[in-house]
Amino acid sequence: MNALDEITESFSRLPGIGKKSAARISNYLLRTDALFMERFSQQIANLQKRIRPCSVCGSWTENDPCPICCDSTRDRSVVCVVEQPQDVATIESSHEFHGLFHVLGGVIAPLEGIGPDQLSIPRLCERVKSEGIKEVIIATNPTVEGDTTALYIQQILKDSGVSITRLASGLPVGGDLEYADKLTLARSFRGRSSF
Amino acid sequence: MNALDEITESFSRLPGIGKKSAARISNYLLRTDALFMERFSQQIANLQKRIRPCSVCGSWTENDPCPICCDSTRDRSVVCVVEQPQDVATIESSHEFHGLFHVLGGVIAPLEGIGPDQLSIPRLCERVKSEGIKEVIIATNPTVEGDTTALYIQQILKDSGVSITRLASGLPVGGDLEYADKLTLARSFRGRSSF
Repeated sequence: MNALDEITESFSRLPGIGKKSAARISNYLLRTDALFMERFSQQIANLQKRIRPCSVCGSWTENDPCPICCDSTRDRSVVCVVEQPQDVATIESSHEFHGLFHVLGGVIAPLEGIGPDQLSIPRLCERVKSEGIKEVIIATNPTVEGDTTALYIQQILKDSGVSITRLASGLPVGGDLEYADKLTLARSFRGRSSF
Repeated sequence: MNALDEITESFSRLPGIGKKSAARISNYLLRTDALFMERFSQQIANLQKRIRPCSVCGSWTENDPCPICCDSTRDRSVVCVVEQPQDVATIESSHEFHGLFHVLGGVIAPLEGIGPDQLSIPRLCERVKSEGIKEVIIATNPTVEGDTTALYIQQILKDSGVSITRLASGLPVGGDLEYADKLTLARSFRGRSSF
């Protein structure tokens, strides 16, 4: 196996990249400027050394605590609970939320041996108690596991006096009724709002 | 911009990878084993140092001349002319051809200033004269530029006494007449064969 085959195999290990795409990328890299290659190689070598989970919220960061946790202009009374570190970037890019985050690190999945203690749910309870949080917005995915986890967090926090909300689930904007699945449609009925 | 954003930007520069896919890959890399990261980084750093064009046929190789040019079991009387180095790997994976290759390095494109001399067409003529080649199979893409280049090579080699052929163009196997475009259909009529 030569260097070209080796790098193609490495690329095809990445999510969303098949054998053909990997070969196309390797061939592109052979023609690209050497400076980019040098920098790209360094970025990969250093990624895991430079990026770590924030000790407060659990999102990926270069400096601990992360810039969001340190930002004094953000609303420190609202915390948005997400499944994965990358969900923080997704929500940030919408510019819709200006509070703090809390990354669970997954969802409750008993069959895979993932219970509340394998996630950062105990740490969330601590934060709610000690940081003066008034609202917890649960933004786990609208899947069976995400809903279960949301319900569990709601149960465990319901006596703490904070307001607990869940992101709305329903028809995506720009979507078409015709192509909506039954469950999404059912949920959009249940969650209907008055004008 | 932190290390995560930097690497995401690098990935989104690669062909076929958009912003979302790049972010997904970066997040995957944060969780992957450090050994893979180390090896992957090295592969990128060394790729352009280890892989170069073969001085005989022009395909990518670690050792010059390439394994195909050096392989004494291959039929040295037939040469298959392709546009790009990666086309060699595609044809090799079909196990259909057992001769030698010749990589043009592109197609004739006067508007972009690419004429026969910018491609390795003069070198092909030399090889045909000196290497005892009996058949030249032109495997440029069935596009306007690929066809033009094929025709040019046919013209320039027609007095050299070698047989010059072109890969068949027509309906792809497993395809459907209904979905074939007009040009492909026209070409499959012109290239029809008797049973």
